[in-house]
Amino acid sequence: MNKPTGPLDPTAIPTGERPGSRKVYQAGERWPDIRVPFREVAVHPSAGEPALTLYDPSGPYTDPAVTIDIDKGLPRTREPWVVSRGDVEIVETPREVKPEDNGFASGAGLAPQFTAPRRVYRARAGAGVTQLDYARRGIVTPEMEYVAIRENLRRKASDPFIKDGESFGAEIPDFVTPEFVRDEVARGRAIIPANINHTELEPMAIGRNFLVKVNANIGNSAVLSTVADEVDKLVWSIRWGADTVMDLSTGRNIHNIRDWIVRNSPVPIGTVPIYQALEKVNGIAEDLTWEVFRDTLIEQAEQGVDYFTIHAGVRLPFIPLTAKRVTGIVSRGGSIMAKWCLAHHRENFLYERFEEICEIMRAYDVSFSLGDGLRPGSIADANDEAQFAELRTLGELTKVAWKHGVQVMIEGPGHVPMHKIKANMDEQLKHCHEAPFYTLGPLTTDVAPGYDHITSAIGAAMIGWFGTAMLCYVTPKEHLGLPDRDDVKQGVIAYKIAAHAADLAKGHPTARAWDDALSRARFEFRWEDQFNLGLDPETAREFHDETLPKEAMKTAHFCSMCGPKFCSMKISQDIRDAARQQNEVASGMDEMAKKFRDTGGEILVPVTAAE
Amino acid sequence: MNKPTGPLDPTAIPTGERPGSRKVYQAGERWPDIRVPFREVAVHPSAGEPALTLYDPSGPYTDPAVTIDIDKGLPRTREPWVVSRGDVEIVETPREVKPEDNGFASGAGLAPQFTAPRRVYRARAGAGVTQLDYARRGIVTPEMEYVAIRENLRRKASDPFIKDGESFGAEIPDFVTPEFVRDEVARGRAIIPANINHTELEPMAIGRNFLVKVNANIGNSAVLSTVADEVDKLVWSIRWGADTVMDLSTGRNIHNIRDWIVRNSPVPIGTVPIYQALEKVNGIAEDLTWEVFRDTLIEQAEQGVDYFTIHAGVRLPFIPLTAKRVTGIVSRGGSIMAKWCLAHHRENFLYERFEEICEIMRAYDVSFSLGDGLRPGSIADANDEAQFAELRTLGELTKVAWKHGVQVMIEGPGHVPMHKIKANMDEQLKHCHEAPFYTLGPLTTDVAPGYDHITSAIGAAMIGWFGTAMLCYVTPKEHLGLPDRDDVKQGVIAYKIAAHAADLAKGHPTARAWDDALSRARFEFRWEDQFNLGLDPETAREFHDETLPKEAMKTAHFCSMCGPKFCSMKISQDIRDAARQQNEVASGMDEMAKKFRDTGGEILVPVTAAE
Repeated sequence: MNKPTGPLDPTAIPTGERPGSRKVYQAGERWPDIRVPFREVAVHPSAGEPALTLYDPSGPYTDPAVTIDIDKGLPRTREPWVVSRGDVEIVETPREVKPEDNGFASGAGLAPQFTAPRRVYRARAGAGVTQLDYARRGIVTPEMEYVAIRENLRRKASDPFIKDGESFGAEIPDFVTPEFVRDEVARGRAIIPANINHTELEPMAIGRNFLVKVNANIGNSAVLSTVADEVDKLVWSIRWGADTVMDLSTGRNIHNIRDWIVRNSPVPIGTVPIYQALEKVNGIAEDLTWEVFRDTLIEQAEQGVDYFTIHAGVRLPFIPLTAKRVTGIVSRGGSIMAKWCLAHHRENFLYERFEEICEIMRAYDVSFSLGDGLRPGSIADANDEAQFAELRTLGELTKVAWKHGVQVMIEGPGHVPMHKIKANMDEQLKHCHEAPFYTLGPLTTDVAPGYDHITSAIGAAMIGWFGTAMLCYVTPKEHLGLPDRDDVKQGVIAYKIAAHAADLAKGHPTARAWDDALSRARFEFRWEDQFNLGLDPETAREFHDETLPKEAMKTAHFCSMCGPKFCSMKISQDIRDAARQQNEVASGMDEMAKKFRDTGGEILVPVTAAE
Repeated sequence: MNKPTGPLDPTAIPTGERPGSRKVYQAGERWPDIRVPFREVAVHPSAGEPALTLYDPSGPYTDPAVTIDIDKGLPRTREPWVVSRGDVEIVETPREVKPEDNGFASGAGLAPQFTAPRRVYRARAGAGVTQLDYARRGIVTPEMEYVAIRENLRRKASDPFIKDGESFGAEIPDFVTPEFVRDEVARGRAIIPANINHTELEPMAIGRNFLVKVNANIGNSAVLSTVADEVDKLVWSIRWGADTVMDLSTGRNIHNIRDWIVRNSPVPIGTVPIYQALEKVNGIAEDLTWEVFRDTLIEQAEQGVDYFTIHAGVRLPFIPLTAKRVTGIVSRGGSIMAKWCLAHHRENFLYERFEEICEIMRAYDVSFSLGDGLRPGSIADANDEAQFAELRTLGELTKVAWKHGVQVMIEGPGHVPMHKIKANMDEQLKHCHEAPFYTLGPLTTDVAPGYDHITSAIGAAMIGWFGTAMLCYVTPKEHLGLPDRDDVKQGVIAYKIAAHAADLAKGHPTARAWDDALSRARFEFRWEDQFNLGLDPETAREFHDETLPKEAMKTAHFCSMCGPKFCSMKISQDIRDAARQQNEVASGMDEMAKKFRDTGGEILVPVTAAE
């Protein structure tokens, strides 16, 4: 897993299975040709328990049977599903790449084109090809069965689980069926971001009643990174568990870099089209036009982008509401549109043209991520009128998008102190008709630049518990610089922690098994199992070996914290053994325990009772 | 700030002011000789705002006017306060150091003794010298005024602040007076850990109605670290903001290392005496006796330890309740006592001898940290009967300790999923009579070994918000190894984030000013101010400089994330300026905003209305 050495050296992309893990697949029943990937973590035979199945968004990169060639892109396994529905047509003359698509980059400054040939699809005239369209028509698509199998983590409907959690009114099923997925999509409560031109995709769902997902942002900026760096960041982030990736590239080569990313991505790719549109008008917001934006939507839709962040809620009347804020407008897209609105003193053209935008996105099944351009950028601005006025607007736009059969999720903050987080979820549920919520953090304090993956993991875990469907990661570099490879890893892991903590607290049927398997390994000193079952086996092993390097120590029944003579886990195992083996003691203890309980846990049990 | 080069090289200890900061002191009114330290962070003149005052537990080490000599220890500024009360006596024949105190270490293996002479004090026969005793007698001690001044962060009673928070029934005052501190201590709702033999102490308070505090654990284990390493870790942890430090040393040299730590510590030092007692009986729990333990309490009380973790709640009848747990008993102290109880099949001698323990601790004003020996070590075991049975016992023991005039705080978990955290706080408030709660995390998931500072910062922030008074940090090495210098820093910073997020959410009068000052700096591109106002200025600067190294960039009105052409903060500043300068536009916008609000935020305002 080295950093790419050459610009397009495929061998540099991180591949191979995770430690102690095996890539496994489960076939569909309705659609036997679908193969849903999982990561199976084996445990030591002494454990006497089966291997643990984990959700696996890492794609073919962790399958040793697959040869990766980023020049060719990933296998287009979804193409037959898309074509066989008979409602799409091949775009005979796809939009041609224009110089402005790459910021007029040329010569050595121009990133290489992705050259492997592919067809570009579009819905036949009048055809509804979105997952929402199909769901409404009662159709279970391969994407829906794929998602159902994926969410169950190989649990069977009959497998028992510990019901324990508080889901705040979510309707998490004990077992996910394809019909359940269809119904959640049909009512807009979940989305399956799946552009018909992103046939390399491994479908996934974003919804309050599914596992909480994590998004990682990548993208070059000011020509700081190469194509290989971005593909590497993509593969790197999904290797650690990112469920979707947003390409936030600005500056030059946006088009070509995006081609490489989409063609090599098994996860949904999201973008903020206004970024590229702005580049096309040389970064001058006032010069933005509907025509430039529309052309950019088609450009990206044909490339296969799965969801677009559209800041249509930044309405002219709301802008003055930000004037007295401590940090004004901090969303890039939001500030671009605000500047355009003020310059022309006109309503946001994304708002005025919203139905036209819907028609374009519908033809490719691009999902909306309705942007929160007025999200708070500081604790002081949290939950203010500008933020909630926009949120209510996003609720209105959600209904418009649904009318056109386009899938929708809603973006959320931002910077919010803990006591104001729940109100964000409640307002979103109230005004956005249960469309999935997708939040950036929120950061629970402003005072820790350099550690905002932590300030925000706190808020992310809480809002995920309250019902947010996807958490957009924040890296340690937030507010300070561009995330490098390690920042991406740190951000993804902090957010996998937040997402799983939320699944646990919601009582998701598959959540507890993971914690319990790891804790059993910990208690039984199965060090290798503890490492491999963790989010980051390599780091866990490295930390352990710093103080107890010897291989023998991996089986030692103690650790460096207490040393051999003095180990709480060992002592309490002795206690358990004693309780098990010495019958008279055991029964004596059970009797004592019973007596204790019978007395209602009364504390002053005479000591004699214990003798 | 390099790592110590030699075992006792005082120049190796990290000293000097924090970046952009100045050490300032505020004198007392009742006690003019007390000097309460603060860290004052200056901001750029262009900000047009005063410097920010931050709480500062770092002690004389960050005062350039003080020469540090760890061979002599810190100045004993508290000694006159203790002596002048006329209720203590000098211990003419202090307990002599015995070979077993240092685990029979000898020769090169024996850590050097701390040799600077000092007097050892004890309460006169029958005298009550604890802060609780004084408070009950209506006395405001210098320690109490010190704490009052410290908690206000140089706010005046008349200074306005934004009332915004949810404190779940806490009674946080707008301004802290010495009388308020006295009354909180008198009713046991706060403690001031301050052994009369720790005269180097800068007093601080732990209580639900004060700022949330953070504890850092240090200590050698299996002879892995030297005296200088431990003093360095102490100074390092308070430099980053630890409010108290626990010395969890095991193995050899425990006594001598502790001497160096206490003599050089401006913060309260806590220990778990059973650890040393166990060493004295060669690590064999069954061989522990009351006599050995009692002798250890006196040894440590004479050294000046400020609080003892005592696992008196691990009662014989509760032990069987742990037999079916996934991770049994994970507290070291708890498992030691459990093993003793089972071996002798007798009640815990700490429980039976509790009143005698109180009498010893009372004579030196050592506070109780009633240990949660049965805390859950995994998500599976959270909030079970063993845990809550012990918690109720700790509530009973609290009343016994208070009867003897001894200060008390209560230790809490551990591993708890988010939906079960509040119940811990509620049960503690219900059964422990509002004695301060002191929790370890809790970790909100078990699946991230190597990142438990994050899994637990989530739980710590939440339980701090709910009312926990002090948060015991967890480092990235938790469950895996011994924390090194960087782990200590990572743990302290993660917990400073949790504690401040909690203060913000509780609506503490001094909390918001910090976030707002940093956010204003961020919005105005005062990079130096943003770095210096943060929890870790060095790291923030380093991250920024990775992408924009030039000094000139520190004043640039953009950052590396978007680049010069394309900066949301810059754009929204333009918006604000536009709104301010162009009167007609501004008034027009205000009018629109008004119209928008008048229409109840109705979305479909005709565009004409905006023209």
